Amino acid sequence: MIRKKQDYATAEEMASEQREISVAEFFAKNRHLLGFDNPNKALLTTVREAVDNSLDACEEAGILPDIVVEIAPVAARKEGAQLLLDGGNGKTAKGLSGAERYRVAVQDNGPGIVREQVPRVFGKLLYGSKFHRLRQSRGQQGIGISAAGLYAQLTTGQPVRITSRTGARKKPHRFEVQVNLAKNKPEEREEELADWDASQGTRVELEIEARYQKHGKSVDEYLKQTAVANPHARFVFRDPQGGELVHERSSKELPLAAKEIMPHPYGVELGVLIRMMKDTPSRSVKGFLQTDFSRVSPKVAGEILKRAGISEGYHPKTIARDQADKLYEAIQQTKIMSPPTDCLVPIGERQLEGGLRKEFEAEFYTSSTRPPSVYRGNPFQIEAAVAYGGKLPAEEPVNVLRFANRVPLLYQAGGCAITKAVGSTAWRNYYLQQPKGSLPIGPMVVVVHMASVWVPFTSEAKEAVASYEEILKEIRLALQECGRRVGIFINKRRRDADESRKRGFIEKYLPHIGIALQQILKFPDGARDKTCANLKTILEKTRQA
Amino acid sequence: MIRKKQDYATAEEMASEQREISVAEFFAKNRHLLGFDNPNKALLTTVREAVDNSLDACEEAGILPDIVVEIAPVAARKEGAQLLLDGGNGKTAKGLSGAERYRVAVQDNGPGIVREQVPRVFGKLLYGSKFHRLRQSRGQQGIGISAAGLYAQLTTGQPVRITSRTGARKKPHRFEVQVNLAKNKPEEREEELADWDASQGTRVELEIEARYQKHGKSVDEYLKQTAVANPHARFVFRDPQGGELVHERSSKELPLAAKEIMPHPYGVELGVLIRMMKDTPSRSVKGFLQTDFSRVSPKVAGEILKRAGISEGYHPKTIARDQADKLYEAIQQTKIMSPPTDCLVPIGERQLEGGLRKEFEAEFYTSSTRPPSVYRGNPFQIEAAVAYGGKLPAEEPVNVLRFANRVPLLYQAGGCAITKAVGSTAWRNYYLQQPKGSLPIGPMVVVVHMASVWVPFTSEAKEAVASYEEILKEIRLALQECGRRVGIFINKRRRDADESRKRGFIEKYLPHIGIALQQILKFPDGARDKTCANLKTILEKTRQA
Repeated sequence: MIRKKQDYATAEEMASEQREISVAEFFAKNRHLLGFDNPNKALLTTVREAVDNSLDACEEAGILPDIVVEIAPVAARKEGAQLLLDGGNGKTAKGLSGAERYRVAVQDNGPGIVREQVPRVFGKLLYGSKFHRLRQSRGQQGIGISAAGLYAQLTTGQPVRITSRTGARKKPHRFEVQVNLAKNKPEEREEELADWDASQGTRVELEIEARYQKHGKSVDEYLKQTAVANPHARFVFRDPQGGELVHERSSKELPLAAKEIMPHPYGVELGVLIRMMKDTPSRSVKGFLQTDFSRVSPKVAGEILKRAGISEGYHPKTIARDQADKLYEAIQQTKIMSPPTDCLVPIGERQLEGGLRKEFEAEFYTSSTRPPSVYRGNPFQIEAAVAYGGKLPAEEPVNVLRFANRVPLLYQAGGCAITKAVGSTAWRNYYLQQPKGSLPIGPMVVVVHMASVWVPFTSEAKEAVASYEEILKEIRLALQECGRRVGIFINKRRRDADESRKRGFIEKYLPHIGIALQQILKFPDGARDKTCANLKTILEKTRQA
Repeated sequence: MIRKKQDYATAEEMASEQREISVAEFFAKNRHLLGFDNPNKALLTTVREAVDNSLDACEEAGILPDIVVEIAPVAARKEGAQLLLDGGNGKTAKGLSGAERYRVAVQDNGPGIVREQVPRVFGKLLYGSKFHRLRQSRGQQGIGISAAGLYAQLTTGQPVRITSRTGARKKPHRFEVQVNLAKNKPEEREEELADWDASQGTRVELEIEARYQKHGKSVDEYLKQTAVANPHARFVFRDPQGGELVHERSSKELPLAAKEIMPHPYGVELGVLIRMMKDTPSRSVKGFLQTDFSRVSPKVAGEILKRAGISEGYHPKTIARDQADKLYEAIQQTKIMSPPTDCLVPIGERQLEGGLRKEFEAEFYTSSTRPPSVYRGNPFQIEAAVAYGGKLPAEEPVNVLRFANRVPLLYQAGGCAITKAVGSTAWRNYYLQQPKGSLPIGPMVVVVHMASVWVPFTSEAKEAVASYEEILKEIRLALQECGRRVGIFINKRRRDADESRKRGFIEKYLPHIGIALQQILKFPDGARDKTCANLKTILEKTRQA
């Protein structure tokens, strides 16, 4: 085929088309990466991002969270407002979604947000306080709530509306914020309110295209699970059908405040080490190692530098690349204490079990909190709990509830380390059926919680935990502990059932034996009854031996 | 539990910690999102990003691609350079990876890159020419090669090295580029070279932590599959063990140059529509509709505006939000022609089959290219090909090769629309075994290629295609066409085998019958042979009737 020259581009022509892509544009075009791929999930993701922020803020400020979630339908789209898109094959493709419009509002009693920060928190992607610190919190990326705002803007053209008040003696402020897509910058409108019904807190309202469902992966289910993992929080949910559901708090104990830690030397990559040395205010490499990392004592720092052949007083900024390489190697070869783990705040065995009791009716409950562990230099801690029996469905795979830093994970179960660990635990040892490599079958709910300063999610949508070997192992150990206790319960119940079945036989057949003996041996009635009583005693003894 | 007040933060204290997160920092911390989660995959991803760019550039410039990929080990890490990280459970965790260092180089004969662009192309994430246009190309996000550079920088501290020359009469230039993490900006060093062995092209060299394997999801496999989907390209691969493998081109026909198209009205969301009206140079909304979209004729534009109740001469910048809403609704309700599909460049049935023949030894080959179709306003086209029989393994699930815009997809098969479509096609109709809902079993290779101006990947790592119903359907239709042809082949071969088995029986037993008859009836030898011949004729006739 002969093609004309002008169809092709030169390096110069190609260069003229190169330009910067704003992160807002990027995520607008790829919004499925953030959990907004369908109207169901978009609703859930929007609520989750707002509630996550509310819970984080309340806990950081030492306030027992009171959170109200409202979802109300907005004047629905006209009938027939559907895409009638002809595919190349001449068939009519379905409409994009059949979604409706909802107004989502989440209000908390938290510390509020200072005026100057509101536009950026809601109108700029990749902005926040949680990314740069190593501290256990629900949010960690600085994307969530601004992505929800972006989604609102894309689907309904409406800005996010924020009302915030930082104290009873402060004026409440109301904002309308949009993201400038090309610049990833907020565009806002602000007004001071004369009054507001809340003395403190934040209210976020978004108008989005969504679909509401009561069951399955729903806001209802998300709030139910959130209540399990956050027994100290109270939730009120007003659904689009006019219903109101309250999850009361089952504990008035605020979780311990999570502590921020410095990175552990083992978790830092060479490139990051080089960058840290450029940025540190320390003027000696020894000081740098001690202050910018956790668990580096003067002795350990000295040991590392000796191994690397770098003198202690060396200025970090002047360290050459090959020296950095040696320093990195030396760190890997030096025995350094594990990172501190008091930065982790598990839910706690008692609290987790309490939450489970509140939400699921069963016969037996148990829970287990593992000691903290470490993956890639990041401390983490696993907890598991199990509810068994009662009205839970007996013939289905067990219900696995997954949590990361107290946030329920409802999607991507198949790709999650938690599901994998449940499937690869040998539940048959604990008297449960289990098809090979699958979830066990039985009337059971399994809860697994991972607390960490940095949860390794498999995507920005924070739907599943990545399968690090260290994490899988800890989950399995926690499950085994719960499993053993459930096994003892199941086994005992089985023996009891066996027992009463046998007792039943004795009680059923013994009178007939008595009558038969009476007829054969011509007993009087008294002798017959006595014989029966004797026989019963003998049989019971034999059986118990 | 009583907690001291100072453990908690006020809104003001929280605000002081809020700051911007650079997209480079974000992806450095989340590099698993980009396909750099383990050393194996990191090697493959690095090669793929560089080769994708080379192929795109060559094709855009109208050059038959000649690409050299070299992977060489760099002085390995010292023995014992492993993490000895104590988990909280007192056990020793394994080293991070056991990875080694490799130097990866990819060189092409493409148009080169103009000097001013080199630092940004390689040292800035979210920069490029492919994101803002609707045009079929391998790259589409502006992340790939700079992410590979970021990975190099993180794991070995080494900058990316680029040599580029835009023509024989131009001077070659060499660059060393790093990403400034905090700013997502390039930091570079540049030198002009006196000479270079290539008269034109680009050479990219990265030093990365990686692991090389010959089989499975390997660079070898990636190049083999890339050769199948790009029969017009020539690849030379020098592996770390000193081996050299050449994939010669099987065609000298350059694919048609892909055309850029305007967005289709049906694929544009309300928020994007509003932004487009702000940014357009058009001064009437009618003009805007006609010039900024594809398939909007003056008649269609008039129809849309009439339905929306907006006058044609209205200035787009002055359209209020509720009018935008009506405009959006009106677009959905107006019948608009499907987007143009001549922007798609499939591999072509003959070429695809040729590529398959070159790389897989089988008995039967067939292929099918579907007519173009549309999802969410984006044109796409599906092709499938099948190789059957010969030395392909007969007892295993079929080998599925997945391609998107000619790029092989090696990871995340389970989450990919292509795998789903293969599993949900009824292969039993075509005489293949198939466990319920799984891939069919048999000596077969299945190739599926999706060409589109925007491939909906499930993650930034571009490993799997999202399951849009329209896409699944088209894949199934292409597979069914191939399936029918394979079924005819299998059925014929089965009948032939049956035939020759029966013929075998006749030839085996007839002489014995002859001898028996001779003994019973006292025939001479001649009569016996004649009887046998007669019997054979009769039997053959009966069998064929």
